[in-house]
Amino acid sequence: MPRTDYSDFACSVARSLEVMGQWWTPLILRDLYLGVNTFDELVADLGISRSLLTARLADLGANGLIRREPYGEREDRYRYLLEPPGRELIPLLATLAAWGDRWQTPQGGPPLLFEHAGHECVPTVACSTCSEALTAETLVPVPGPGARAVRGTAVVASRPLPS
Amino acid sequence: MPRTDYSDFACSVARSLEVMGQWWTPLILRDLYLGVNTFDELVADLGISRSLLTARLADLGANGLIRREPYGEREDRYRYLLEPPGRELIPLLATLAAWGDRWQTPQGGPPLLFEHAGHECVPTVACSTCSEALTAETLVPVPGPGARAVRGTAVVASRPLPS
Repeated sequence: MPRTDYSDFACSVARSLEVMGQWWTPLILRDLYLGVNTFDELVADLGISRSLLTARLADLGANGLIRREPYGEREDRYRYLLEPPGRELIPLLATLAAWGDRWQTPQGGPPLLFEHAGHECVPTVACSTCSEALTAETLVPVPGPGARAVRGTAVVASRPLPS
Repeated sequence: MPRTDYSDFACSVARSLEVMGQWWTPLILRDLYLGVNTFDELVADLGISRSLLTARLADLGANGLIRREPYGEREDRYRYLLEPPGRELIPLLATLAAWGDRWQTPQGGPPLLFEHAGHECVPTVACSTCSEALTAETLVPVPGPGARAVRGTAVVASRPLPS
């Protein structure tokens, strides 16, 4: 079944998922961040098929999240590197890992932890203005300049937002 | 093509994606957060097929991210509500929206913005210890107690992590 695309949604979550939310893509970004960045290493680490990996890397490149550069001595060998939009997704993926450690507790404990500036660090979503950790209860959605009543926001745009 | 599952991965990103990373699921969580929470409203807002929505809601319920409760006068009507693990994903989805606003700039500007405690708020990933915003450069991955060299971490577990 072909995936429905979200490109006509007036929703920035949908627009983000359109470029990074396909199955496998977040794990490819994770691996590139961790230094697993050649085609063969990605296949070996993820167990992804070569054709699917080729397609995902092409999408990520077309969307500007990664670039490739020649690697080693053979001309047809590349390594794949995160570009700024891709690098900015890494802290988000780290919050997702922390969420998984809390709610889908892995056998044996978390496989990966984080440090920052020499101390322990649980990646947390916080307010840019006051640095307080955000929750669904304290985060208040407000319509932005691009709010429109189209697919993906048809109901949302027609009613007051919760507050 | 059936989706490969990640359940044998020793990776908390993969474990999280297993329960919330399917196509449509983040947008269903977004809608529930925004108060679009009956089956018919979700269909109308997202344009998702009824069979796919049924499957996604069942998965979310089985994984404890949502619950349903009777709604209105008919016995077979429900509304779907976020449970704590689902509610905790909302700030993460808000960071994804902010990323989309920065890098996939929507026509007409952001459709949705956020406030917190009366001020403007860009949901930002920060360190739980010092509240500094995290970047891929300052976030340091370290092996956790559950680190194992299995599928999804075969290469990662066999080499030093970047620092």
